[in-house]
Amino acid sequence: MSERPADMAVAATARIARHEPRLRAFTSYDPVRLRQDAEAAPAGPLGGLSVGVKDIIDTGDYPTAHGSPIYAANHPRNDAACVALLKAAGALCVGKTVTTEFAFFRPGPTVNPHDVSRSPGGSSSGSAAAVAAGMIDIGLASQTAASLTRPASYCGIVGFKPSYGRYALAGVKGLAPSFDTLGTVTGDVATAARADAVLRGPVPASPRLDARPPGRIGLCRTPWWPEAEPSTWKAVEDAAARFRAAVPVDDVDLADYGAAADLHITIMSYEAAQALTWEYACRRDMLSPQVTQLIETGRAIPYETYRDALRQASLLRQRVQALFDRYDALIAPAAPGEAPLLEHGTGSPIFSRLWTLLRLPTITLPGLTGVNGLPVGVQLLSRFDGDDDLLDWAAWAEKLLPLRPAPALGEG
Amino acid sequence: MSERPADMAVAATARIARHEPRLRAFTSYDPVRLRQDAEAAPAGPLGGLSVGVKDIIDTGDYPTAHGSPIYAANHPRNDAACVALLKAAGALCVGKTVTTEFAFFRPGPTVNPHDVSRSPGGSSSGSAAAVAAGMIDIGLASQTAASLTRPASYCGIVGFKPSYGRYALAGVKGLAPSFDTLGTVTGDVATAARADAVLRGPVPASPRLDARPPGRIGLCRTPWWPEAEPSTWKAVEDAAARFRAAVPVDDVDLADYGAAADLHITIMSYEAAQALTWEYACRRDMLSPQVTQLIETGRAIPYETYRDALRQASLLRQRVQALFDRYDALIAPAAPGEAPLLEHGTGSPIFSRLWTLLRLPTITLPGLTGVNGLPVGVQLLSRFDGDDDLLDWAAWAEKLLPLRPAPALGEG
Repeated sequence: MSERPADMAVAATARIARHEPRLRAFTSYDPVRLRQDAEAAPAGPLGGLSVGVKDIIDTGDYPTAHGSPIYAANHPRNDAACVALLKAAGALCVGKTVTTEFAFFRPGPTVNPHDVSRSPGGSSSGSAAAVAAGMIDIGLASQTAASLTRPASYCGIVGFKPSYGRYALAGVKGLAPSFDTLGTVTGDVATAARADAVLRGPVPASPRLDARPPGRIGLCRTPWWPEAEPSTWKAVEDAAARFRAAVPVDDVDLADYGAAADLHITIMSYEAAQALTWEYACRRDMLSPQVTQLIETGRAIPYETYRDALRQASLLRQRVQALFDRYDALIAPAAPGEAPLLEHGTGSPIFSRLWTLLRLPTITLPGLTGVNGLPVGVQLLSRFDGDDDLLDWAAWAEKLLPLRPAPALGEG
Repeated sequence: MSERPADMAVAATARIARHEPRLRAFTSYDPVRLRQDAEAAPAGPLGGLSVGVKDIIDTGDYPTAHGSPIYAANHPRNDAACVALLKAAGALCVGKTVTTEFAFFRPGPTVNPHDVSRSPGGSSSGSAAAVAAGMIDIGLASQTAASLTRPASYCGIVGFKPSYGRYALAGVKGLAPSFDTLGTVTGDVATAARADAVLRGPVPASPRLDARPPGRIGLCRTPWWPEAEPSTWKAVEDAAARFRAAVPVDDVDLADYGAAADLHITIMSYEAAQALTWEYACRRDMLSPQVTQLIETGRAIPYETYRDALRQASLLRQRVQALFDRYDALIAPAAPGEAPLLEHGTGSPIFSRLWTLLRLPTITLPGLTGVNGLPVGVQLLSRFDGDDDLLDWAAWAEKLLPLRPAPALGEG
């Protein structure tokens, strides 16, 4: 925090030089620009913090490829609103981080800092790995299904997906506008809260974080609990037991929300097919089989089916409000288990589809581990627009979990 | 429709050459490219129709300046989803049309085809003027406050702002995401319906339009009726009388929705300040006083005030649903009166703020005139997501109104 700008740039460059050859978290960064940017950075509430920008987010200084060869040489004219906010608050943007293709499923080159044979999760792969390895303080990330929560869980870091709409999406490539949500991955809740006070913009808010317990927690194993691995079962039960020592924790049954996963898939597929119309019409040969399949799934959905799914999703959002009359916060699984091996892809989004559909704020907390000793996160959720309270509760909850395991990083 | 592509390009070029020097509806078009595009256009449901693209919408062939000198030389890599859909359906994109700066209030050079001393309305100024002058069949337009309805009213054409979210916004510069809605201006309802079947994408729907009356119409003068001019009072009462000869038309009192206008201003200002963060932070000297004022208004609004306005807007959207148990459609003023003189700007958005806030579909219908013989439109509205019915009812209503006045266009 007290580093001189030039020292900060040198330190960031050294960290990246050390870990990047093995982790491959960045699509582009430039030590010369980094130093210039550090010298030019204004004073502000994020002074001394470094940021990595997921490569579906426009930047005027670096190319923005959206994880696709179609945009390999794409140089936007301007920074996205979120990047401009962070820079104006004194943060140092050190480069662009790897995303899966259009924030969907085709992985980039990034590996998991805790085990380089495993996935960092997707789609915010590079931001999560870079934070876990200490290369950056704040990773800009986004979620349409599970693209922030899952990599945070796999990489053993904090992932904050705020309420839908809290951070402006201007300059962020969209996949499914009903769900697309910008958020952050960070090393701890305090850093997420500092970034939040700036990113909710347009004017930085006064930083505030009051670590305090929620009054009552609901333990929501979700209808997909049987699909989780023992690592996740154990992590969620362990977290619940730790919280229960301080506040009431009751089981919450959301069995009748099981349709949410299919609703989410219907809406996401349809909207992705709309959003990627040009790419499918004019650059189809440059799309992966995964994205092509997503688009073609969307194209096969009748318009009426899509609109009906939107209506049902809206009703679920209204219905879930009553749940938060009884519980301040929920805890739930963040991912099915530990990070999968690279050859198995970026993992299943099943434990986030419901919450993304409901547009609720969620913070993934690290500290617990699975059967192989790898990180397993748990989600803490709150009511829509309850982000300020959720950050406070997460700062409290974070302290009840074990110290997060540091990745055993070699010398690259 | 049966024109050969080359003939169509020649005819479009001739129409533009004739009227454009006086009307100044286009920011860019290229007769050579037009001919090439016509030869290459695929067969499809929009074959033979020409399109103008509002210049906040990305196009790979033409620059996209958003009505701002900041983006004067901005050349996107790709077409927006809406443009790709229209092209794939066989439509011929003839160029980019004038928008006010960032679709807000600073006018471009376009004049009203019915009286060149008057405004075409904004922000979809060029698309509306070009349709009114017969230079294009379909104008892509958008609305965040009244940017589609008002120019349609002033230019004496059909303006269709569908339900929020019906047309994908991928590749469209956003101003206030809670309201930004893509739509069309056209010469008649049938053309709007043909475009709709394509634009609601990703796959063109079967064209269908069944001109039929709604069961019951509500006449909604709105809480802002006293702010309208006699031209608008007369047009709305005249339209109501014509419809009443065929179906029941009852007065509807929405006096208790009066707060909607301020809610709309709060949300739009806050979100515009977020969306234009980079422009304000890094190119402030290139912003107009109007946009600067909008951003600074937004920056002065506390976050909690903004989120509270969002909650109130959501409640109004739920409440208005019951109105459509009693009325299939509403008719309402489209603008305060005839087009204002150029020096008075693009006119007041007051008669659209409520409907934009409520996210309802609306069609502005031409045919009536004001005290100076200039066009005055009326809005026909329906329930959220009732777009298909609304198009059918508008096709019926259109026939009950006088033939629209053709602009008395000289030879440029």
